[in-house]
Amino acid sequence: MSLHAETPAAGSRTGVWFVGARGSVATTATAGCAAVAGGLTPPVGLVTETSAFAGSGLPALGSLVFGGHDTATEPLPKRAEVLAAQGVLPSWLPAAVASELAAADARIRPGGPLPGDTRGSEELIGAFAADMAEFIRTTGVDRAVVVNVASTEPVPGDGVLPPSSLYAAAALRAGCAYVNFTPSAGLHHPALAEEAAASGLPYAGRDGKTGQTLLRAVLAPMFHQRALAVRAWSGTNLLGGGDGAALSDPAAAAAKNAGKERVLADNLDTMPEGEVHIDDVPALGDWKTAWDHVAFDGFLGTRMVLQTIWQGCDSALAAPLVLDLVRLVARAGERGLSGPRPELAFFFKDPDGRAPAALGEQYVALRAFGERLGDVR
Amino acid sequence: MSLHAETPAAGSRTGVWFVGARGSVATTATAGCAAVAGGLTPPVGLVTETSAFAGSGLPALGSLVFGGHDTATEPLPKRAEVLAAQGVLPSWLPAAVASELAAADARIRPGGPLPGDTRGSEELIGAFAADMAEFIRTTGVDRAVVVNVASTEPVPGDGVLPPSSLYAAAALRAGCAYVNFTPSAGLHHPALAEEAAASGLPYAGRDGKTGQTLLRAVLAPMFHQRALAVRAWSGTNLLGGGDGAALSDPAAAAAKNAGKERVLADNLDTMPEGEVHIDDVPALGDWKTAWDHVAFDGFLGTRMVLQTIWQGCDSALAAPLVLDLVRLVARAGERGLSGPRPELAFFFKDPDGRAPAALGEQYVALRAFGERLGDVR
Amino acid sequence: MSLHAETPAAGSRTGVWFVGARGSVATTATAGCAAVAGGLTPPVGLVTETSAFAGSGLPALGSLVFGGHDTATEPLPKRAEVLAAQGVLPSWLPAAVASELAAADARIRPGGPLPGDTRGSEELIGAFAADMAEFIRTTGVDRAVVVNVASTEPVPGDGVLPPSSLYAAAALRAGCAYVNFTPSAGLHHPALAEEAAASGLPYAGRDGKTGQTLLRAVLAPMFHQRALAVRAWSGTNLLGGGDGAALSDPAAAAAKNAGKERVLADNLDTMPEGEVHIDDVPALGDWKTAWDHVAFDGFLGTRMVLQTIWQGCDSALAAPLVLDLVRLVARAGERGLSGPRPELAFFFKDPDGRAPAALGEQYVALRAFGERLGDVR
Amino acid sequence: MSLHAETPAAGSRTGVWFVGARGSVATTATAGCAAVAGGLTPPVGLVTETSAFAGSGLPALGSLVFGGHDTATEPLPKRAEVLAAQGVLPSWLPAAVASELAAADARIRPGGPLPGDTRGSEELIGAFAADMAEFIRTTGVDRAVVVNVASTEPVPGDGVLPPSSLYAAAALRAGCAYVNFTPSAGLHHPALAEEAAASGLPYAGRDGKTGQTLLRAVLAPMFHQRALAVRAWSGTNLLGGGDGAALSDPAAAAAKNAGKERVLADNLDTMPEGEVHIDDVPALGDWKTAWDHVAFDGFLGTRMVLQTIWQGCDSALAAPLVLDLVRLVARAGERGLSGPRPELAFFFKDPDGRAPAALGEQYVALRAFGERLGDVR
Repeated sequence: MSLHAETPAAGSRTGVWFVGARGSVATTATAGCAAVAGGLTPPVGLVTETSAFAGSGLPALGSLVFGGHDTATEPLPKRAEVLAAQGVLPSWLPAAVASELAAADARIRPGGPLPGDTRGSEELIGAFAADMAEFIRTTGVDRAVVVNVASTEPVPGDGVLPPSSLYAAAALRAGCAYVNFTPSAGLHHPALAEEAAASGLPYAGRDGKTGQTLLRAVLAPMFHQRALAVRAWSGTNLLGGGDGAALSDPAAAAAKNAGKERVLADNLDTMPEGEVHIDDVPALGDWKTAWDHVAFDGFLGTRMVLQTIWQGCDSALAAPLVLDLVRLVARAGERGLSGPRPELAFFFKDPDGRAPAALGEQYVALRAFGERLGDVR
Repeated sequence: MSLHAETPAAGSRTGVWFVGARGSVATTATAGCAAVAGGLTPPVGLVTETSAFAGSGLPALGSLVFGGHDTATEPLPKRAEVLAAQGVLPSWLPAAVASELAAADARIRPGGPLPGDTRGSEELIGAFAADMAEFIRTTGVDRAVVVNVASTEPVPGDGVLPPSSLYAAAALRAGCAYVNFTPSAGLHHPALAEEAAASGLPYAGRDGKTGQTLLRAVLAPMFHQRALAVRAWSGTNLLGGGDGAALSDPAAAAAKNAGKERVLADNLDTMPEGEVHIDDVPALGDWKTAWDHVAFDGFLGTRMVLQTIWQGCDSALAAPLVLDLVRLVARAGERGLSGPRPELAFFFKDPDGRAPAALGEQYVALRAFGERLGDVR
Repeated sequence: MSLHAETPAAGSRTGVWFVGARGSVATTATAGCAAVAGGLTPPVGLVTETSAFAGSGLPALGSLVFGGHDTATEPLPKRAEVLAAQGVLPSWLPAAVASELAAADARIRPGGPLPGDTRGSEELIGAFAADMAEFIRTTGVDRAVVVNVASTEPVPGDGVLPPSSLYAAAALRAGCAYVNFTPSAGLHHPALAEEAAASGLPYAGRDGKTGQTLLRAVLAPMFHQRALAVRAWSGTNLLGGGDGAALSDPAAAAAKNAGKERVLADNLDTMPEGEVHIDDVPALGDWKTAWDHVAFDGFLGTRMVLQTIWQGCDSALAAPLVLDLVRLVARAGERGLSGPRPELAFFFKDPDGRAPAALGEQYVALRAFGERLGDVR
Repeated sequence: MSLHAETPAAGSRTGVWFVGARGSVATTATAGCAAVAGGLTPPVGLVTETSAFAGSGLPALGSLVFGGHDTATEPLPKRAEVLAAQGVLPSWLPAAVASELAAADARIRPGGPLPGDTRGSEELIGAFAADMAEFIRTTGVDRAVVVNVASTEPVPGDGVLPPSSLYAAAALRAGCAYVNFTPSAGLHHPALAEEAAASGLPYAGRDGKTGQTLLRAVLAPMFHQRALAVRAWSGTNLLGGGDGAALSDPAAAAAKNAGKERVLADNLDTMPEGEVHIDDVPALGDWKTAWDHVAFDGFLGTRMVLQTIWQGCDSALAAPLVLDLVRLVARAGERGLSGPRPELAFFFKDPDGRAPAALGEQYVALRAFGERLGDVR
């Protein structure tokens, strides 16, 4: 097998099609990719830029081409300025990557369904897929990855394809790999299962593991390995921004919390007492505070407590993971790998397929996957 | 190879010789072992009682025979009552295991150097070794493990063997395996290196990883795997009891903190800013509160913070690990394994030999060791 | 006016009639009063035992006589043992005050409505009042105070007198002063307003300020006095025990939270963003953890955060306040004071009448009240 | 007495002479005063802008004229930009008040002693006083207040006047009122006592109460009023910036901690166990995190814990208090009040004279002082 066919060609480029392309995560990913690729800031938070993935043949950050759908109309350069004013992006960034943001913004299509939209599901899927195909054609990218970073949807009712699934179906139709970074249904909808399996495309999901659940994925294994008995695990998340507002809808929060609970149940073998709250606190903007309280028993039943307080910026936590996923999934597609990728469980609350639940084991699996992507025998 | 030689014989018994046999940790381990062996309480916190170690051929908890050295004279049954009054032990425990405590107490020897003691190092080692040998002889145990759970010593000066090393030398001389659960020098003293290597005995250390450092051993890998840049890691420990008083000595605290820092340096590849304080707060008794503050940078340099608050009872955290170590080291000796055991890094702040620094990897190594101990081919 | 009539006579005794007499708060108050009166433990937490109230002519702790209603049947001595096993009461206490607990238990009547009870409101009030009157007669107390420490009720619907109000009506009928330590309606029900005003009896309420709200009553004034702009005040309470279960009912929680919010609104002049959660976590028993997160702006809009974590035992916080209130209200009745007592706002989340909202000012008012109670001119 | 003489004349102006005029606090105060006076931002954090002080006849913010001493040479406009880049000042502020900052910077003199300075104490005092007098003369202000906001000095040795005291002596000589916002000796040096008393000038100090101690000044009274027994009060402060570096000197920290401890001792009547740490963490810049852990006993000795975490920007907390003090002390001087002003204890850790220790009582005293300043009878 020739080396030429296996490593990205000099001019090879990869498309990134965001569903929610003008949201905080997509704006941060688009602007940040340009900044890191341009050497303006170090690649902090980008797992795929560490030495472990140097030989994986991943597409270069500078070779990513951004576009997407969004019903919002505020242009990316303006969105970046708003995020900088809130301290989510560095104040120097919007000006430094203004041309890249403008170029990406010009490739954003309105998506849907729009207010008053009378198109049916099939018609919407067709329109979305046409937008994606046109993006691939006009930019000349070798392949594209569709990434859902839109606001969390409520758990859908029976038989109705929610918007996230319409976009996922369009991705399949346009021949794009797919990543679901949210807890929405997306490609997980049962109506799409057959089509996904037959597509020959790789996909990964769902719901990025960025803060509280990331912590739980290392702390729960710790308790379990030490044979400490977790009695109750309670948590409260405070956040503003669009995500805060979306998750104040109990149905949307339910989708989110299912993933959070799965991390505990899978790691502890049993589900402890305790609830998780997600409060919309507009004053906090895109900054999230997550408090966790773990009541556990030690030797002879002695009662002990661990509390954690995580104060992070959600977009800044999510954006590099999104870029990591795009690179890994694009390369997987290039190597002919298809179907769900449990090797990417490291990135998700509720990962596809059978995957280990502890972050450390997920990291081992991810590194092995990185080596496999680079193998050219 | 005959099965008979490899698995513990029905009547096989293992000696546990505590240096610091009337301290909180030894009292909790002695009382707790009796309680769990007697089915009075579930084996919470005992890693070696989980299913993963069922086939390792470890000595049964009920086959452990306790003795040790201590310069303190308050008998174990009384010590247990004091600990129960402080909430460290369950109130029902001292009465329930009174006879086992009295039996162990009868096997405690005064050790030394005692106030006004004029014996030199060599003489002390000889006396300690004689006590250990007599314990083995009179109890008829098949083998014994000496475990240092005495108060932390200051870092020793040049050329002087501190008490912990005198006891370690005695262990070698008496043919006992050795575990150093404290940051004191013990068997790590350079003057003992040759003797340890030639002894044919297994040993493990040092400084049990029970609270703040346990957390650090899972959180630091998380930051590293996610390529997040830790800028500063600061911590404060509040504790009373004997350990609080001992560690209020800056020299003793220095010994302790070296281990804490190693966990960060090994896992992060770089040493972040930040100090660690250990405050003696007698009002807290044996309960420890550890606050950690981690300032880290995310994508594009966004500043974020993780804080953890750990409220635990040190003796209840340490005692089951001590029992785990005794069982594993005793079995290693039975299987003819000698020298330092890096496979036991899971239990220590500052482990022997070349061992992984992340708790998850240490656990993988421990389980592999457990399987090796059980293999009888 | 003769001195003799104004200070408690040597043999003067005061009755305490608990609604919820076998609950955690009443059990702790009954047992603790005996222990402090008997000199077994110092009067920590009893405001009325501080020197400021030495001249107020309050009834002595040893002169209080306990009884009450409860539909639960587990006797007080047994209840005390359960609380001691949970660490709520000291382990030595149940035995030390066994006779006092047995005597109080013998004075407890079943109350109601009981399961299958067909008695109407009027009949129940009559029966309750008869129990109270009999208590006064048979014990020979000079006066009695009825204290509601039963589980929080849901906010009542229109026109129905909830149980707490039936007991309050009975108190008036039996000529007893009344304290509502819960957020339930009690004497605040509009149907009782006229009767209360005409009774000539003193009363006070409602909802004891024991933990999170106590903190808020000192922190909110701090922000206000410093002209710092509180943007959001969020809180989560974790608790088990009967209170945790009762407050997991959203209707009961609503009654509780109204008081918590009033403290913020009254002290800050404006209501900040933020929610309050009350989670039932049975594993925590009677121990409550309250986390508060306050996002505030400083000079030039700089965003800052205060977080508090309160870990307390609810019964141990409530019981001394109940005793304080009994003594103050009994003495007020003795001095001929009637009606709502806003001077007692120090003790309540949602105090009667016009009272200052800051704890410091409430304390000034309480001390002035203490002096007034002692004045004999 | 004529009204004209008592209220500030239309053209009346007040000088503010900062010792440490290019430090973070002075820069924030100078820039912030211009921003608030110009209506660019609301007066959050300025106690003297609340309605309670509307009638006190305080000098208007727009009438303050800034100058001062500093051995640092980076100009104020540049300093403001640095602080804005760190998020201490809003990004829009430096440009918006550039002319005011440049004007103030032009009035800054180098102070001393400078490196290699051979001038003696008397000569330095004379030079400093001459700078102050020239400031008054050239700006034409009616009066001036000297405010020490320089880095904390170590506790001085016997007989040596530290720099802060040289500046304080100069203030007296130049006829300026004096405010010591730091724990340094300043006017508290015994060698200056007689001169201060004879000066006829008002003065106030010392050590602004901005974060951890502010909290302690409301929490300690709460525990005391509720008769709860504080067993241990421990704290750790993490901060970077110049203050962090200065306070990593144990001698400087000792000066700081004396004030922190006084707040506890004065409010609790007894000094609990516990230490206070101040760690220099450069990564945190001007942002301070203060963790406090309070172990207290409730009724019957039940052990409970309160923890607080304060995350604030020190300059933004200090600057408005500095402006408040300038206005109050200037007005006091105008009204002929002289000597130490215990009425200003609200602002200080270690206040002058006999003052209440609880923040609430200090606020009552401050408001009374505000009324007194406005009285024109």
